[in-house]
Amino acid sequence: MENFTYNTPTLVRFGRDAESETGDLVLQQHCKKVLIHYGGNSAVRSGLLAKVEASLTEKGIEHLSLGGVVPNPRLSKVQEGIDLCRKEGVDFILAVGGGSVIDSAKAIALGVPYAGNVWDFYSGQETAKACLPVGAVLTIAAAGSEMSNSSVITKEEGDLKRGYRTELCRCRFAVMNPQLTCTLPDYQTQSGCVDILMHTMERFFGGVPTMALTDGIAVALLQTVMKCAKILKQEPDNYEARAEVMWAGSLSHNGLTGCGSDGGDWSSHQLEHELGGMFDVAHGAGLAAVWGSWARYVLPSDPQRFAAFATQVFGIAPSGTPTETALAGIEAMEAFYRSVDMPTSIKELGVEVSEEQIQILADKCSFQGSRTIGTFRPLNRDDMAAIYRMAKGD
Amino acid sequence: MENFTYNTPTLVRFGRDAESETGDLVLQQHCKKVLIHYGGNSAVRSGLLAKVEASLTEKGIEHLSLGGVVPNPRLSKVQEGIDLCRKEGVDFILAVGGGSVIDSAKAIALGVPYAGNVWDFYSGQETAKACLPVGAVLTIAAAGSEMSNSSVITKEEGDLKRGYRTELCRCRFAVMNPQLTCTLPDYQTQSGCVDILMHTMERFFGGVPTMALTDGIAVALLQTVMKCAKILKQEPDNYEARAEVMWAGSLSHNGLTGCGSDGGDWSSHQLEHELGGMFDVAHGAGLAAVWGSWARYVLPSDPQRFAAFATQVFGIAPSGTPTETALAGIEAMEAFYRSVDMPTSIKELGVEVSEEQIQILADKCSFQGSRTIGTFRPLNRDDMAAIYRMAKGD
Repeated sequence: MENFTYNTPTLVRFGRDAESETGDLVLQQHCKKVLIHYGGNSAVRSGLLAKVEASLTEKGIEHLSLGGVVPNPRLSKVQEGIDLCRKEGVDFILAVGGGSVIDSAKAIALGVPYAGNVWDFYSGQETAKACLPVGAVLTIAAAGSEMSNSSVITKEEGDLKRGYRTELCRCRFAVMNPQLTCTLPDYQTQSGCVDILMHTMERFFGGVPTMALTDGIAVALLQTVMKCAKILKQEPDNYEARAEVMWAGSLSHNGLTGCGSDGGDWSSHQLEHELGGMFDVAHGAGLAAVWGSWARYVLPSDPQRFAAFATQVFGIAPSGTPTETALAGIEAMEAFYRSVDMPTSIKELGVEVSEEQIQILADKCSFQGSRTIGTFRPLNRDDMAAIYRMAKGD
Repeated sequence: MENFTYNTPTLVRFGRDAESETGDLVLQQHCKKVLIHYGGNSAVRSGLLAKVEASLTEKGIEHLSLGGVVPNPRLSKVQEGIDLCRKEGVDFILAVGGGSVIDSAKAIALGVPYAGNVWDFYSGQETAKACLPVGAVLTIAAAGSEMSNSSVITKEEGDLKRGYRTELCRCRFAVMNPQLTCTLPDYQTQSGCVDILMHTMERFFGGVPTMALTDGIAVALLQTVMKCAKILKQEPDNYEARAEVMWAGSLSHNGLTGCGSDGGDWSSHQLEHELGGMFDVAHGAGLAAVWGSWARYVLPSDPQRFAAFATQVFGIAPSGTPTETALAGIEAMEAFYRSVDMPTSIKELGVEVSEEQIQILADKCSFQGSRTIGTFRPLNRDDMAAIYRMAKGD
């Protein structure tokens, strides 16, 4: 195992009607003016936005709003938020929404105190030294951004989707009411479940020996999410299942399932980021579409680890070579994806990707051949292209 | 499941030589003067204290020391610390030791800004409103105080051992190097493992329906600790096993294994606190001595929950009535305790307790009959006496 740092400062209020406590939580931050950042009309239609605004007003907290965040949130909206915060003297950002909204809020928070262009952080040219405080009222269980140290932004010019990690941007608090997720369409619910699974699987396949406790927690989380995803397929308003998935979403990406394993692999995420940048697909669905191909491609580097995954997560009895057990585990995972109508190829994602586009995806994902991705097996541009080709699905 | 709050603000640095980062971590707290609080001579002999002092001096941080904390830490030492901190203008307390030292540090931190007697918090007469910041360099895996919101202090007058919980006292940071625990005597190691197990079991038996994810994490933690306790019996300097136990100690008491279950039962802890106050026994060993009797006494209130414990933790196949499966689980737990030379009765703890003493224990534990303890089944003074009698062991 590796040394590790564990940092989860986010105060969580979890449960029914938790959003009514938002005003109290913001008040404890001793800020002067709050930007409420949100996405589309659902926050307005559902009455959530009005409820949150009322909660702040009741506590005498000055606030203004900025909506319009889209999935795969855009740099232009982030810049609009930065300009607004500076003009209005905002000193706290409250995200009301899912991962896209929280990521956009984090990017604004990083941009306000920075003299240059906030994209400098996402392009890897600069390291953030300051960040406005951020809080979240979560409406989608998926990205785990409410407790994570990361955010992902898409720059329209060049369709570049990039992530940035810093401890500075961890939310001060997260309000999580599973009831708010009960009306999500099934595709979005299942896509969220895949994202949650993948945040733990990226860490499980970090490529270094980890801790038995970390593996045990990871297995419990994966099994719980798969079980509940199937329940939600039949009963979308099952509160208990929504709650399990929502809490799993936070624990899957706050660092807990990576303790001792030094960070994780993240190749599937990087490969999906390029797909998301080019085709604007749902993030979780994109992950499901590439994971099996990634897994089969890298499996020879450590069949035992994949065999352990098969045995521990799916209870598959070891038989034959470790590779055979490993392949049975990959197939079991893909069978789960299919059982909840998630894709296992790019074609099933609704995208026909050409060989020319595969080259562009690999070029972008490898920063024009200047970087590798992943730790289980480091992947160069050719590897990336090969995996996209395997995942193409025709 | 119940609504819950999750609050784990403690920054953890975990791994080999982590203590060398202490100076950096204290520096980030922007304090003026640090009290280094420690226990007996082992911190001095091992060179740890000198290393920590050097780490602070190197960063230009002013500091002074107060040692002499004993197991079941005393109110008189806490008062000595409070007086010293006030006299010297200390504004940060660094605990170097195990749970007793951290608990003593937390009590000092609560006492310094409070005009009255710090015991007021532990006796339940007052609620703390302020607390000096505390950090910890952990040397014993057991109490989980490094990430918990609680501390337990013994008042010499009347042998009163009482706990107090407040979010204010959570450590700002915890430095955890499993190497530091490799030289612990086996009895202390195993006693620590029991304490860790019990922090999760108290929550598992909280008496209300909880979350599948919480149960899954709890089971993973219990199984890992039992496996590693047995390894450490044979190989006390096995780093990996020490690391698993140390990290489990923190996760077992930081709130993670109680999410959705509203706090936990804590009867075994309360019953043991009285034993500890009267006989000064090792806390974990005391817990092992009373748990089986508590379990058999309360089992009829919900045999299914104990059967689930048997099945999930020990893989016992359900057979006969739930009560039969449940009893097999309790026996499996006691068999584990015996396998690591932990007691399953007060007699095996080395204490002959008389009927008169049992009455005194029950009187004290029930605050002279004025309170019940526990949530799985609330216990009054007569119940407490009955359990002590069952646990007596003759």
